[in-house]
Amino acid sequence: MGVLENTQELENGDGVTRSDVKLIADKAKMVNDDEGSKGKEIESIEMVFKDTFIPSWREQLTVRAFVVSLGLGVMFSFIVMKLSLSTGIIPSLNVSAGLLGFFFVKTWTKMLDQCGLLKHPFTRQENTVIQTCVVAASGISFSGGFGSYLLGMSDGVADISSDADSPYRSISTKNPSLGWMISFLFIVSFIGLCSVVPLRKIMIIDFKLIYPSGTATAHLINSFHTPQGAKLAKKPVSALGKFFSFSFLWSFFQWFFASDGDKCGFANFPTFGLKAKDKTFFFDFSTMYVGVGMICPYIINVSLLLGAILSWGIMWPIIENKRGSWYDKDLAPGNFQGLQGYKVFTAIAIILGDGLYNFVKVLGKTGFTLYGQMKNKEARTILPMAANASKPDDTEAISFDDQRRTQVFMKDQIPTWLAVGGYVGIAAIATVFLPRIFKPLEWYYVIVLYIMAPALAFCNAYGCGLTDWSLASTYGKLGIFLIGAWAGASHGGVLAGLAACGVMLNIVATAADLMQDFKTGYLTMASPRSMFVSQVIGTAMGCVIAPCVFWLFNSAFPDMGKPGSEYPVPYALVYRNLANLGVEGFDALPKHCLSLCYGFFAAGILINLTRDTAPKKYARFVPIPMAMAIPFYIGSYFAVDMCIGSLILLIWEKRNKKEATAFGPAVASGLICGEGIWSIPKAILALLKVGPPICMRFLSRRGNIKLDDFIAMLGR
Amino acid sequence: MGVLENTQELENGDGVTRSDVKLIADKAKMVNDDEGSKGKEIESIEMVFKDTFIPSWREQLTVRAFVVSLGLGVMFSFIVMKLSLSTGIIPSLNVSAGLLGFFFVKTWTKMLDQCGLLKHPFTRQENTVIQTCVVAASGISFSGGFGSYLLGMSDGVADISSDADSPYRSISTKNPSLGWMISFLFIVSFIGLCSVVPLRKIMIIDFKLIYPSGTATAHLINSFHTPQGAKLAKKPVSALGKFFSFSFLWSFFQWFFASDGDKCGFANFPTFGLKAKDKTFFFDFSTMYVGVGMICPYIINVSLLLGAILSWGIMWPIIENKRGSWYDKDLAPGNFQGLQGYKVFTAIAIILGDGLYNFVKVLGKTGFTLYGQMKNKEARTILPMAANASKPDDTEAISFDDQRRTQVFMKDQIPTWLAVGGYVGIAAIATVFLPRIFKPLEWYYVIVLYIMAPALAFCNAYGCGLTDWSLASTYGKLGIFLIGAWAGASHGGVLAGLAACGVMLNIVATAADLMQDFKTGYLTMASPRSMFVSQVIGTAMGCVIAPCVFWLFNSAFPDMGKPGSEYPVPYALVYRNLANLGVEGFDALPKHCLSLCYGFFAAGILINLTRDTAPKKYARFVPIPMAMAIPFYIGSYFAVDMCIGSLILLIWEKRNKKEATAFGPAVASGLICGEGIWSIPKAILALLKVGPPICMRFLSRRGNIKLDDFIAMLGR
Repeated sequence: MGVLENTQELENGDGVTRSDVKLIADKAKMVNDDEGSKGKEIESIEMVFKDTFIPSWREQLTVRAFVVSLGLGVMFSFIVMKLSLSTGIIPSLNVSAGLLGFFFVKTWTKMLDQCGLLKHPFTRQENTVIQTCVVAASGISFSGGFGSYLLGMSDGVADISSDADSPYRSISTKNPSLGWMISFLFIVSFIGLCSVVPLRKIMIIDFKLIYPSGTATAHLINSFHTPQGAKLAKKPVSALGKFFSFSFLWSFFQWFFASDGDKCGFANFPTFGLKAKDKTFFFDFSTMYVGVGMICPYIINVSLLLGAILSWGIMWPIIENKRGSWYDKDLAPGNFQGLQGYKVFTAIAIILGDGLYNFVKVLGKTGFTLYGQMKNKEARTILPMAANASKPDDTEAISFDDQRRTQVFMKDQIPTWLAVGGYVGIAAIATVFLPRIFKPLEWYYVIVLYIMAPALAFCNAYGCGLTDWSLASTYGKLGIFLIGAWAGASHGGVLAGLAACGVMLNIVATAADLMQDFKTGYLTMASPRSMFVSQVIGTAMGCVIAPCVFWLFNSAFPDMGKPGSEYPVPYALVYRNLANLGVEGFDALPKHCLSLCYGFFAAGILINLTRDTAPKKYARFVPIPMAMAIPFYIGSYFAVDMCIGSLILLIWEKRNKKEATAFGPAVASGLICGEGIWSIPKAILALLKVGPPICMRFLSRRGNIKLDDFIAMLGR
Repeated sequence: MGVLENTQELENGDGVTRSDVKLIADKAKMVNDDEGSKGKEIESIEMVFKDTFIPSWREQLTVRAFVVSLGLGVMFSFIVMKLSLSTGIIPSLNVSAGLLGFFFVKTWTKMLDQCGLLKHPFTRQENTVIQTCVVAASGISFSGGFGSYLLGMSDGVADISSDADSPYRSISTKNPSLGWMISFLFIVSFIGLCSVVPLRKIMIIDFKLIYPSGTATAHLINSFHTPQGAKLAKKPVSALGKFFSFSFLWSFFQWFFASDGDKCGFANFPTFGLKAKDKTFFFDFSTMYVGVGMICPYIINVSLLLGAILSWGIMWPIIENKRGSWYDKDLAPGNFQGLQGYKVFTAIAIILGDGLYNFVKVLGKTGFTLYGQMKNKEARTILPMAANASKPDDTEAISFDDQRRTQVFMKDQIPTWLAVGGYVGIAAIATVFLPRIFKPLEWYYVIVLYIMAPALAFCNAYGCGLTDWSLASTYGKLGIFLIGAWAGASHGGVLAGLAACGVMLNIVATAADLMQDFKTGYLTMASPRSMFVSQVIGTAMGCVIAPCVFWLFNSAFPDMGKPGSEYPVPYALVYRNLANLGVEGFDALPKHCLSLCYGFFAAGILINLTRDTAPKKYARFVPIPMAMAIPFYIGSYFAVDMCIGSLILLIWEKRNKKEATAFGPAVASGLICGEGIWSIPKAILALLKVGPPICMRFLSRRGNIKLDDFIAMLGR
């Protein structure tokens, strides 16, 4: 349950990786040697598009785009809602949004074209606008917490939670109703947008973070819109298509063997044996994460693996041995008072340490730069970050794509006063109105949350850029604990905690998701201004669509949230229990957990300091704490996947450097997008209650003999 | 059990495929375009070896070769014996023999070389001589029937068989004893050799049969001995090495998940769903058969698939529906009075039809050719066989390798008078002495067997050349039925049948195995004369080694053959029960089985006639009956494997014809040899009782839910 929960929320966010100097997209420029090594001209993506018209930012925002976005937004909201209410596992929709958007608008424009009525051709910028809008709209179905914190406030869930008989129950529940849910979402959802805007340049231009899913989506969109005459782009596009199909078909094939996702199928393949599988070390045959691994710099993947070994290989087994002494040995596996608590809070500690270090560094450098009046020039070299040295610098080779894209990206600025003003304005509105919606949520809690939020949004957007994992739910849980403990049970701390979770989760989830989109926009030369407008419109759509869809489900299935019903909403109960735990304060944490957290927080900062002070020769071998922390509670399997991706790329580069550089990103994008798209038919199959027919299961030899005896017994 | 039994014995023989005009080995000559399509000179294997010394046939027979052969022969005999006494599943050892032979002699010659004592360099011909000798020696452990017919004669097995209380039991048993076993083997084992000699030229030069395992072994040996300066040969050799490693590691990986070979692991992967798996339609992830499929002409693989669909897809389900009316519905799955009877006997009928047609055709053509005094020239064009047209003719391109090899192959002739004289002589000895060993085996039975044997040996060698499956055990069963029915229970027909099985099985097994070796010899330019001598010596070794090894086991484990003991010898009981069935004559067969057999026998002949009379344009689409028959009772899975091999080659040829032609055979050989070699460590692990730790099992969704309930029940 514990791991599942994490998977659920993390899969919704999408993450990425940093690489200071060499933008992975630039790897895609490349060689186009049709026949082995005849070595034609090096060609860049933007070279291929150089004769293609780029519409102004207003022209990118077409009516047809928003009509399609609305349709897809509703569809995806239904899918996300249904899944979050039943199993709690939600797929990433970036890729699907891009692809389906292309499909619908292309069909429409083709029809018009044949009637001779087409005025504006369909551009990749418009495609990106649709994708962004749909992601923003359907994202609310997740970050709105209908399957987690919001429903956790209801009486129905309180009845079965650990505070069912609490004296303060009356002030700790709030039943869902269309009115307050829409108001709540409008108040909390837009503030994330304001925090994204100033971070945008730092994450994408300065840090050159990779955001693998966003990059893959951009590759997909670029490949759809490649001008027909462009022979030079043919090979990478066909590589993308091939690996896209492979990844899609392979995911489809896998589906048949996973009738029970927790125990069956390739996702539970004990590649390194059953004991390693117990410690989450296995290759789960996910082509998506192999592709992500191919896009991420080596140091990220190595850091992930180091973190996995440190946590699952060393620390958790040690702590598990202390069961009964460090924590109650009768606890359920996912209980935060047990091992799960160590996993989540140590990971948060490292992430906060790393994130805050970089946040402070950025602030300091920016202040320094402003002071020195050397804004533009200096900004480019502001941050000699980790991944800086992880790939060789060849600044010249990357210049054309980079220049063009940066130029477009920086042209249509969104004024900082708008972002800052918006943030302060919305925070003020929230401070006034949120306490009216949730009585126990005092106005000063809200102010504190909004003061902390930008730093945490930075952390999450940064981590997601590095590793493709958005840890929004983790920050949400932090909100539950902080505000819950502060308010205390007697002042309705449970409800206050859940509401705080909503505030926090919305900001950090939006920060990561929309930054992912900005990366897509950067790589497809969409104007940041049109992206921003699209995000605002999408968010507004989502704030209405999501509660309505939820309301539909809630009316149709009144026993929602009851275990065993059609919609058990498993995570609503988890979040409520978490809040019950939170109000007890730090005492609720298992023994030594807090000291471990202090240690890891310090380690997160120290490792960063080491990297920044060590000589460049050694600095590139220092791992990245943020990446190390993620497997702490997700598990090691995706680190294994990503390292396999690294390995494939490494071997490929050894054998044919040119080819690997030329086609690597296309292949990786194909792998990521194929599995990404499969999530749509998979979700539809789940909605139609069509389950996989076969369970591929892994038993120990002894277990298998027992099973045979059992079958023989049945036969008798 | 039924399928398993077949697998067992079939895996020992190795088979191949026909392709009249284009020798697959010649595909390996090839292009050596280091960089894409720069298109250097077309290069043949023998071109690479053209400056390498070929020793005379006497020089190929070195003392060190036979010392190594003796060692390996003993080792392999132990492995084969142990496996046939415990599980009955025996791997193919051709490849291992070649590889280990190379390893030992190379080490020895290197040592001598460094001491300056090396007189004769190690040649590929010597390597082939070792391989042949080891195969001949260890083959006796299988064809000697210690795990099947020979032990089936014993009192211990009779006790648990269906004739335990038969009044004729005293005349139907013979307990193993070292003396008569060695004499028996010496009498029956050499005659196979004599029948191989005259077939040799027909199968390899005229029919140009492929014998995939033999071809693969030859590729391996050639690649070991490639002269160091030969840059041109580097690419195919490295392709072979790469796919060899892949295939070996993949087989190794698969092993971990197959703790119960009947139910677990990749070999039971329901690739096309559980229902298709029930009908044996699945891809079992065997790289070996994918490789075999790549070497075999398309028509063979298509014929296999056709046969699989006809039998497992259509006929068996229909016959199964007649259960209770056509045959007793309470029979065990492997019982020959039920479905298994239809499977085996219809397959035999087709094979006999096809085999006899070609046998008669060869006889007729040969007679005609002799008559016309045009021996040599005409012989080359004697047989416009099926596969004739399956690959395009480019006679010129193949000429160099072909000429060289044919020249060597035809130089050192083995006189026909020796083969015929030997055959008649040994048959005479057998006619006198076999009835003395087995009382119920009358002298005229022996004469009849020896009259039939050459035709059946032809059938088996031909079928094995086409498809890589040696069906020796099937012919052995035919012997049980024919002689058993003739003698009748009251005249000790059970013992007579088992003895006849031994006679038959030895001849046909030797014919296929040694023809496979001759193919290897042909492709490595080993002299047929040295091969023959090596086979004689190997067979003699085997006739002594095998009974001794068996005797050792029998003395150490007196309860051998008892179910549940360490050595249950499963097939000894199967063979005895088969003999019990045989003495009942045709009446024992299930309803309509005999009429079906007549029909399929006729069909086997008719299809061949159609191919030979149809216009060439259509003839190449006529399937090959022999290939169609093999899946009848083996199952469809290997036909699926082989078709996947075809598909890979087809796509490869479409994309890059030159490359596919150049590297296809090397890749295929690598795939075949890698899995082949893995059988040695696998067998050793089995001997050490180290079983795989994990069972990868496939359950229906409902079955999985039941299992979960069961596990929950255990937990309570």
